[in-house]
Amino acid sequence: MTRLSYGKDYGDAVMLVAGWMQEAGAMTGLDPWGNLFGLVPGAGGALPPIAAGSHLDTVPNGGIFDGALGVLAAVEVAAALHDGRANLRHPLLLLGFAEEEGASLGVGCLGSLGAVGRSPAPETIQTADGTSLRDLLHAFDPGVPHRTMPAPIGAYLELHIEQGPTLAAQGHSLAAVEAIVGIARAVFVFVGEANHAGTTPMNVRRDALWGAADLVTAVRTLARDTTGRAVGTVGRCSAFPGAANVIPGRADVTVELRSSDDRLLTNLVAQVEAAARACADRYSLTLEIRPWRTEPPAPLNRTVRDEICTAARELGWPIDVMPSWAGHDAKILASIAPTGMIFVPSVGGISHSPREQTAWEDVGRGAQVLCRTIERLDAS
Amino acid sequence: MTRLSYGKDYGDAVMLVAGWMQEAGAMTGLDPWGNLFGLVPGAGGALPPIAAGSHLDTVPNGGIFDGALGVLAAVEVAAALHDGRANLRHPLLLLGFAEEEGASLGVGCLGSLGAVGRSPAPETIQTADGTSLRDLLHAFDPGVPHRTMPAPIGAYLELHIEQGPTLAAQGHSLAAVEAIVGIARAVFVFVGEANHAGTTPMNVRRDALWGAADLVTAVRTLARDTTGRAVGTVGRCSAFPGAANVIPGRADVTVELRSSDDRLLTNLVAQVEAAARACADRYSLTLEIRPWRTEPPAPLNRTVRDEICTAARELGWPIDVMPSWAGHDAKILASIAPTGMIFVPSVGGISHSPREQTAWEDVGRGAQVLCRTIERLDAS
Repeated sequence: MTRLSYGKDYGDAVMLVAGWMQEAGAMTGLDPWGNLFGLVPGAGGALPPIAAGSHLDTVPNGGIFDGALGVLAAVEVAAALHDGRANLRHPLLLLGFAEEEGASLGVGCLGSLGAVGRSPAPETIQTADGTSLRDLLHAFDPGVPHRTMPAPIGAYLELHIEQGPTLAAQGHSLAAVEAIVGIARAVFVFVGEANHAGTTPMNVRRDALWGAADLVTAVRTLARDTTGRAVGTVGRCSAFPGAANVIPGRADVTVELRSSDDRLLTNLVAQVEAAARACADRYSLTLEIRPWRTEPPAPLNRTVRDEICTAARELGWPIDVMPSWAGHDAKILASIAPTGMIFVPSVGGISHSPREQTAWEDVGRGAQVLCRTIERLDAS
Repeated sequence: MTRLSYGKDYGDAVMLVAGWMQEAGAMTGLDPWGNLFGLVPGAGGALPPIAAGSHLDTVPNGGIFDGALGVLAAVEVAAALHDGRANLRHPLLLLGFAEEEGASLGVGCLGSLGAVGRSPAPETIQTADGTSLRDLLHAFDPGVPHRTMPAPIGAYLELHIEQGPTLAAQGHSLAAVEAIVGIARAVFVFVGEANHAGTTPMNVRRDALWGAADLVTAVRTLARDTTGRAVGTVGRCSAFPGAANVIPGRADVTVELRSSDDRLLTNLVAQVEAAARACADRYSLTLEIRPWRTEPPAPLNRTVRDEICTAARELGWPIDVMPSWAGHDAKILASIAPTGMIFVPSVGGISHSPREQTAWEDVGRGAQVLCRTIERLDAS
């Protein structure tokens, strides 16, 4: 699957899904950010819509479930209610967001950020080859009428694959998401002295990579010590000048920390900084920490989560409560509406890959819990 | 100083030095590898020449001493003997080698390798922009007649800056080199599993950079434990795919080990390999060790070294004995003639830099020891 936002395949998908939305009784529209929506009228007068969906774009060479599952399950819920002539009191808003992956424009959740009024200006965002988002949006016309998305929204629900191994490893089918993790990222630059790898004795070296290597170890140890409440990753490590026979005078590493616990994440940032300073001091290096870019954790709505759990139990299935370790459109929607997420397992934890897989039985359970939760919210 | 082999500045230097050689009574020639030589006839009949020199090329943006010092000191010795009408019994062969740095063609000591018949074929060597050594040599004509260098050689002496901090740190002026270190180099490739930096719990990660970071530490520790008899360097470290939010699935590091003790170097190679395998096992990684490229240590001639030390003491100066931690033309010449090297201090250990510096008093001492050693070898 490769459906890059605003491209030909993405436009085809928008048209296909818009057709299914219409068959389920929805009036469809494309908002100014290329997000597809379908609105099924409610029977209860001027109530705000209950929204459900996810995103329609994929990473390059991705899987079939990431994003599409949540959109199609919402459409399926609408279709089932439509076929069963089971009208909700609230309008049902079906959502297919654009550019959640950030694969085309480098900004994750761009579509949902636009929908809630928090996107950067379209003329400031561009693709790798220099096309601005404004020009992309101008040229993007899959054939769905341009409309303004209804607002405000009464609640938002998103069914998504876990994209991690936890549910599959435990043999569980369902989870309600309690929070979407916060992410703190920084680049650490250690500077020592580049020098001859032969003539410089070990005891006078100021090898920048020594500090960087110790920081890799410190990040692993500090994250492990949280016993599952945080993760920490060094994804990039570069030594300069980068020759086998030259002592590295500079080494750059990225540190990424994630936790759903805001206080823990803040503490961890401080601990990693302290560890990095100790690593630098140990080898007489200087350390520059490029400013942290931090997205705080987004706790999801407790009431919505309880409704999800109750819905699952009514259907006879156990359900876990867990954080989402990856970002989702739900994180953005949580800022404007009570929001809940339902996870189904990813076999082997594999995602962003054609090998992404979820058992169809689990897919079905997720969709049914989504439907029952919508019905419960509608009744409450 | 930038004098890249076979370039315009290099040709100008060859002509300048050839003129000085001629003033000192030498007949000059350019051998097929672009090495400049000058031969001062001896008074003693058919004796093999005593050779002295170093290299005329520099690294880009190098210093004024590296290489040039040894050539000019040899020419100065010839000039002093000539001016003093102090004829040696042996012919005196003054040598200015090309491409010791490997900066133009990527092969260190190329000129001296050519002179001793051990160079790769000229048509197989080329510059970064694709010019073959054969074409370079064909076009290189600074105006010195092409001649065959005299062979065999009775002895070779090279005065050079230490390029390390040891002599300067001890406040000493002179050292005789006992051996030129051997160098063992390999690339270690750790392979784990690239994965999502959020959704993959710490306890199931197979982070290739964890293994690489532990190897950086192991190389430092193992080299330090030799207490000055070896050095070890990781000069390159790269994590793949190299994104802040992806767990590295692969990490490559270079390891370079140096020692003048052949057995120690062999042991150290084995210890680093064992440590790397332990690092890989610790995190369930696989390890590929690209084959080691090893140049064994080159012990210099004991008799020549003793003559250097005696010469220094006769002149009233203390002299150390130490290994050379960097490669030199002397390493190549040692395979065909009894060879000795004299070191003078590098202020702050700085070399391959315009900041390269040696006190003129130390330069003078080095040249006088060179002269006295030549006289002693001539008499023996």
